Amino acid sequence: MYRYTGAVERTPRSEIRELLKVARSTNVISFGGGLPDKSLFPIEDLKQITADLLTNRGFLALQYGATEGDPDFIGAIVNHSKSFGETVAPENICVVSSSQQGIDLLTHILVEHDDVVIVEYPTYLGVIQAFQRAGANMIGVKMDNEGIMPDELEKAIASAPKKPKFIYIIPDFQNPTGINMSLERRKKIIEIGKKHDIPIVEDSPYREMNFTGKNLPSLWSLSGGTGIITFKTMSKMLFPGMRLGWVVAEKEVVQNMVKIKQSVDLCTSSFNQLIIAQYMNSGKLHDTINKAIELYKGKKELMVSELAKNMPEGVSWTNPDGGMFLWMTLPQGYSSKDLFMISAQKGAIFVTGNAFHCDGKGINTLRLNYSFPTHQQIKDGIKILGDSVKELLKK
Amino acid sequence: MYRYTGAVERTPRSEIRELLKVARSTNVISFGGGLPDKSLFPIEDLKQITADLLTNRGFLALQYGATEGDPDFIGAIVNHSKSFGETVAPENICVVSSSQQGIDLLTHILVEHDDVVIVEYPTYLGVIQAFQRAGANMIGVKMDNEGIMPDELEKAIASAPKKPKFIYIIPDFQNPTGINMSLERRKKIIEIGKKHDIPIVEDSPYREMNFTGKNLPSLWSLSGGTGIITFKTMSKMLFPGMRLGWVVAEKEVVQNMVKIKQSVDLCTSSFNQLIIAQYMNSGKLHDTINKAIELYKGKKELMVSELAKNMPEGVSWTNPDGGMFLWMTLPQGYSSKDLFMISAQKGAIFVTGNAFHCDGKGINTLRLNYSFPTHQQIKDGIKILGDSVKELLKK
Repeated sequence: MYRYTGAVERTPRSEIRELLKVARSTNVISFGGGLPDKSLFPIEDLKQITADLLTNRGFLALQYGATEGDPDFIGAIVNHSKSFGETVAPENICVVSSSQQGIDLLTHILVEHDDVVIVEYPTYLGVIQAFQRAGANMIGVKMDNEGIMPDELEKAIASAPKKPKFIYIIPDFQNPTGINMSLERRKKIIEIGKKHDIPIVEDSPYREMNFTGKNLPSLWSLSGGTGIITFKTMSKMLFPGMRLGWVVAEKEVVQNMVKIKQSVDLCTSSFNQLIIAQYMNSGKLHDTINKAIELYKGKKELMVSELAKNMPEGVSWTNPDGGMFLWMTLPQGYSSKDLFMISAQKGAIFVTGNAFHCDGKGINTLRLNYSFPTHQQIKDGIKILGDSVKELLKK
Repeated sequence: MYRYTGAVERTPRSEIRELLKVARSTNVISFGGGLPDKSLFPIEDLKQITADLLTNRGFLALQYGATEGDPDFIGAIVNHSKSFGETVAPENICVVSSSQQGIDLLTHILVEHDDVVIVEYPTYLGVIQAFQRAGANMIGVKMDNEGIMPDELEKAIASAPKKPKFIYIIPDFQNPTGINMSLERRKKIIEIGKKHDIPIVEDSPYREMNFTGKNLPSLWSLSGGTGIITFKTMSKMLFPGMRLGWVVAEKEVVQNMVKIKQSVDLCTSSFNQLIIAQYMNSGKLHDTINKAIELYKGKKELMVSELAKNMPEGVSWTNPDGGMFLWMTLPQGYSSKDLFMISAQKGAIFVTGNAFHCDGKGINTLRLNYSFPTHQQIKDGIKILGDSVKELLKK
């Protein structure tokens, strides 16, 4: 009776969302999802703010809101951006119900079936899902330790069957590799985009989670606010349970996204926007971010030192200066799927690298999250993972 | 630089969302949006529930949740359905961030460009937006006072250039007309769907807002749970500010929607789902619904009597037994857009009928909302509207 679309066939199930179910239902140690540490959640502040909001502006908070977002939340975003050195005007902002929704709106406004889009190789699995659903022809461009490689990018543009619709990159502590794009590289990539008249999509969930104390300017800022579409989210610097993010782009792009958003979910929760606006305006978001930086830096250092202790020869990993993930590479010829089968039984899980490669390859790689597990879980879990890798390499 | 998709061109801006902006920014009396009366919002209960939730399960509420929805909210939905005589299993439910998102997921799983879909004539403007965005070929089928007309539906199926992917109807107190589909008609439409092997999409936001005290069974129930996809929302029976709805469908349909939802927004707010689950489980939702029925019934009766007092000959309107809207028809040859220009200046607005017609016609019709305005606003606004119609007819 149901005659499904090609999109149903094309869209892969999220390996992460499936793993999350395992992690919720068993006692396994999860290095899988990109979940923040719950000890950072400002429960008491939220109780206060929510009670105030319901008392004073409950009627506004519980009603429909404007599709582009609540003016208070947009104002708080402008100030937040400013405190991180970024200039954003209200008209450049579209509030979204998660930056994943930003990606969804992007596919609606720019991607027709068979359109070429360029992504990093590897990249965030949620864009692979959305772009595959839209029928995009994804071209993956390799990265070095400064980010996506300019020569490879030029080659990809030159050899693409059609002019690419955009270049999607995650410059700040990339998911999944943890690589932070250098200032030089940022400028170079913007230059390439402008030369070929191709927009750059800058997904930046981890920008604030910077362990070095020194932020690099965003592509949005470096470009002077043209030719760049930036996605931001509350899910990593604060918590994901209220589903709030925003898009920064030129006014025309924002207006087209707003029009599509009307057909997608009408508007984002006013209740949630007003809670978080009040939290941001209280100045406490900066405290939470600083706590997160301290906590995640310590966890990352622990994970790296435990990896050094437990991993056999031939295995390598990144050592990021921010974000939530590091990236591990097994010797060629070994499969992280096989490793998963071993380690899951022993009690530790992660996401296999193929999920982050637009062509489904990269099977000898894997992503480890260090923000969610406790210190003890990192110790125990990396021991399990080390044992599992040794078992795998012996086979 | 930006080469937009056909979807950007095809998608009309929502006339309602634009009107809402006017209504928020001026003192005009709005019969425009489908907003519930804010006096029904259970502010004190929500303060209590939110504080409890943050204290006891804040870590769960603020974290990512499962894409298909939180088990507690799904459980509350099962019980709510039962209390309205409907049998729904958890596996038949996909939680969505508004029933508009259900419509969006529907287009993703079933509508390819140029596919035929059948809608009521007139129908909900949010589906016109979503279906136009998806490039659907919409065929509008006329209604009588029992709902969509079986003979016309048969004709539309027979003459469609392709077999329709589904028949989209709003059986309960239809938006925009207020018409409630009779039991006989419900059975007949299910029979036609089964005969032609065409699924029926049942959008039912107003089912609970029934002034008669006597519910008719849903199409989902009447069909025994096959060949029907039902959309439900919290926005009308409770409030819209938390963006919560759900889809009821066969398991396979739910699974395909969940897969697409992963790429669309990952998951719906756990925080909001857990608040509303607790509110539903407290039994108080029924009290709120009963209060809403009393309030809206009174407002509808007031509006109908004010219309009788103020409207000149040749103007007609429906007198619904539930829901939030009534539907007005001007004499042939007169335009509700012209009327809008007159009445907006005098201080009252509504939505012009063309927005609800899939072919953009029906310009001599308009929709009036009676749930949002106060009693005084209904009196004043219908007086303004009556004066405006008289002015229009004199021209």
